[in-house]
Amino acid sequence: MATTEDLAARSPDAATDRANAEVLERITSAEPVLRDVRPAGDAIPELGDRTVLTSGPPLPWEQYTGGQRTAVIGGAVYEGWARDAEHADELLHAGEILVRGCQEVGCIGSLAGVTTPSMPVLVVELDGGTRATCTLFEGKSPARLNYGVYNDEVKRNLDYLRGTIAPLLGEAVRRTGGIPLRPIIRRALHMGDELHSRNAAGSLLFARELMPQLVSLARDGRAAVDELVDYIASGDYFFLRASMAASKATLDAASGVPSSTIVTAMAFSCSEFGIRVSGMGDEWFRGPLPQMETGGLFAGFTEDDAEFMGGESPITETAGLGGFAQAAAFPLQAYQGGTPERMVATNLQMYEITVGEHGVYRIPYLSYRGVPVGIDIRRVVATEITPAMDIGIAGRGGGQIGAGSFRAPLACFQDALGGFIRRYGEAPSGVA
Amino acid sequence: MATTEDLAARSPDAATDRANAEVLERITSAEPVLRDVRPAGDAIPELGDRTVLTSGPPLPWEQYTGGQRTAVIGGAVYEGWARDAEHADELLHAGEILVRGCQEVGCIGSLAGVTTPSMPVLVVELDGGTRATCTLFEGKSPARLNYGVYNDEVKRNLDYLRGTIAPLLGEAVRRTGGIPLRPIIRRALHMGDELHSRNAAGSLLFARELMPQLVSLARDGRAAVDELVDYIASGDYFFLRASMAASKATLDAASGVPSSTIVTAMAFSCSEFGIRVSGMGDEWFRGPLPQMETGGLFAGFTEDDAEFMGGESPITETAGLGGFAQAAAFPLQAYQGGTPERMVATNLQMYEITVGEHGVYRIPYLSYRGVPVGIDIRRVVATEITPAMDIGIAGRGGGQIGAGSFRAPLACFQDALGGFIRRYGEAPSGVA
Repeated sequence: MATTEDLAARSPDAATDRANAEVLERITSAEPVLRDVRPAGDAIPELGDRTVLTSGPPLPWEQYTGGQRTAVIGGAVYEGWARDAEHADELLHAGEILVRGCQEVGCIGSLAGVTTPSMPVLVVELDGGTRATCTLFEGKSPARLNYGVYNDEVKRNLDYLRGTIAPLLGEAVRRTGGIPLRPIIRRALHMGDELHSRNAAGSLLFARELMPQLVSLARDGRAAVDELVDYIASGDYFFLRASMAASKATLDAASGVPSSTIVTAMAFSCSEFGIRVSGMGDEWFRGPLPQMETGGLFAGFTEDDAEFMGGESPITETAGLGGFAQAAAFPLQAYQGGTPERMVATNLQMYEITVGEHGVYRIPYLSYRGVPVGIDIRRVVATEITPAMDIGIAGRGGGQIGAGSFRAPLACFQDALGGFIRRYGEAPSGVA
Repeated sequence: MATTEDLAARSPDAATDRANAEVLERITSAEPVLRDVRPAGDAIPELGDRTVLTSGPPLPWEQYTGGQRTAVIGGAVYEGWARDAEHADELLHAGEILVRGCQEVGCIGSLAGVTTPSMPVLVVELDGGTRATCTLFEGKSPARLNYGVYNDEVKRNLDYLRGTIAPLLGEAVRRTGGIPLRPIIRRALHMGDELHSRNAAGSLLFARELMPQLVSLARDGRAAVDELVDYIASGDYFFLRASMAASKATLDAASGVPSSTIVTAMAFSCSEFGIRVSGMGDEWFRGPLPQMETGGLFAGFTEDDAEFMGGESPITETAGLGGFAQAAAFPLQAYQGGTPERMVATNLQMYEITVGEHGVYRIPYLSYRGVPVGIDIRRVVATEITPAMDIGIAGRGGGQIGAGSFRAPLACFQDALGGFIRRYGEAPSGVA
């Protein structure tokens, strides 16, 4: 059997090239629209009762550790399925509460990614009907469920999102008839965002879309409009969840194309990084956790304080944003370190591992060149250049302690290419 | 007598260095606040009756030509001081209607800059009390008074601003207690604006500041809130007028410092470009019109269609924005041509003719280096590098036909330095 290196060096296979062109077309033509904000239990029919969704390639319950374990338990207690953390752990151990991967059900998780039925989610849809969901930004408090903390403050905040913010936000979104996200992402890339670790412009552009509805809701006597304005307008992070859901819907619509070697998801749990490949459906190819290249830790923290708690926001990189658009977002320096020169170099590298450039999402500094999109596992293995990802860093004690530019592990891509060869052999055409 | 070149080559004079340090400190420490929106006649006590303000170093009425002449006449007719254009021209000729320079009375003019008593203006103030005013953006119609058009459509739009938009905007601004502009400008520089020809982020950030008041005005039953939301939220240009008024107030507070060689205004009329210098007070040093370096004309127009109609927006460059911050605003390429490389090179050149860098206004791409600020006429004359300015281009038929990066004429700076030498001689200390 050919080694993965042999295969990567070979001239591209025609069936795979055709399949990849189809996948690229699906990714770059997708027009995600925010349709609603409502409880995950309503928005995700497959979610079922007593299930906690969490980030990354799924693991047996025993293998979840640290902040991610704390967050899953917190989600179960928050839903009232268990008296306390110990009880929740027992029920999870016994399989009376289930833990599943967000992406098994069209959901996408930020950090620990814990999503339970009563939690509100953004509902993003494509024209073809593909739907993706993502929970709401928990706000500016460093104590957040998805950064591995569950206590009274976190519970109060989740209640506030569920009871006050989400119902009104949902109504405002429904009144718009749907908010097209592609124009917002397109413009935000011209305004210093890469739509992963920086969403300052996206959040403002989104707020602007909602202004007429906020005025109209105020006129209808809805007292909570002031709180909704404060929630939407005071932060720079609101839009990340919309960017993630838009990317997830886009890539789900591009998955399952036989013979394609294009990556359709990148995500991690507390202990593993994993990727999905279009031609390989929903299978996860797993490897070690990502490596930090440049990082900015908040004052008072060191690298020893950092902990992986899961994260599926690299779905944005998979769609050509985040680390694949760093040259659109020089202000990221102030947040995650690095230099403008390095950001440009990293961004340019990403063109070496992708099959195309986006026709709508463009980078002003690169003379409006389209973002690199369609990560090809063959190119990653051949060049040993792995995807760059802009990621928030969680701390062992819970909460966010910094952010950095990371690299995905090569092993996942090698493993995926091995799996691809086993499945499609040397003449993929017609095999699938 | 020493030639200007001799003087420029000499070691810097100590009194001038001290004076320039004082001017730089005043410019970089200014904290402009938008206080109100109200009729120019109320906001500018010195305006007087039957006076039309217009852009640039003032000229006798006969010397105003083309679109600027049309706009001044339009302003007089709009105020009801004349039956029609011909009548207005007679009254202007007879001195029964006066024409003055905006900057004689703390006002700053966009393009033709026509400002008459009933027109609403943004009122920006510094802590020390210095006040500057600027009319409102006329909206997206290509037919605008300040682009040299006066007809029924322009009149209707001016009426709409005066009757509907301005009163409510003024109330919203007053309810905020004042909107600090420095934080908006600081952040907009991180979001692709240079605050002259690009104000997309500034306009959004401003809209966000106003959101709570818009909600509150809607609750109070103010029907026009929807129109105000549309006016503020639908355009990317609203904030330019705030940026201009902020720059004007800042530079007025820095003017009149004896022995200073720092430029405190750059502006042009239909036929002349002029600068003011802090140590020379309100005197204008005049030269030929600016030269275009790179330009983007809208489809269907050529350079022959372009016409200078006046403009005082280079007050933003004088404050370290616009052409002095092009490396913050790569999206400008799409509007005014040029390349990212050239924008960076132009921006870096501006450090050669300025005495300092701003501590708050910074450029992410230049590793957060402060914008170059404090244009020194000695440096301009010595290097023959003249200020770069991002300017909208008016068409002969009226209306905007493009935008470009222009260079100020060297002659003004040579003339100013000559005037400076005549006034201060070779030992400026204590002369003034």
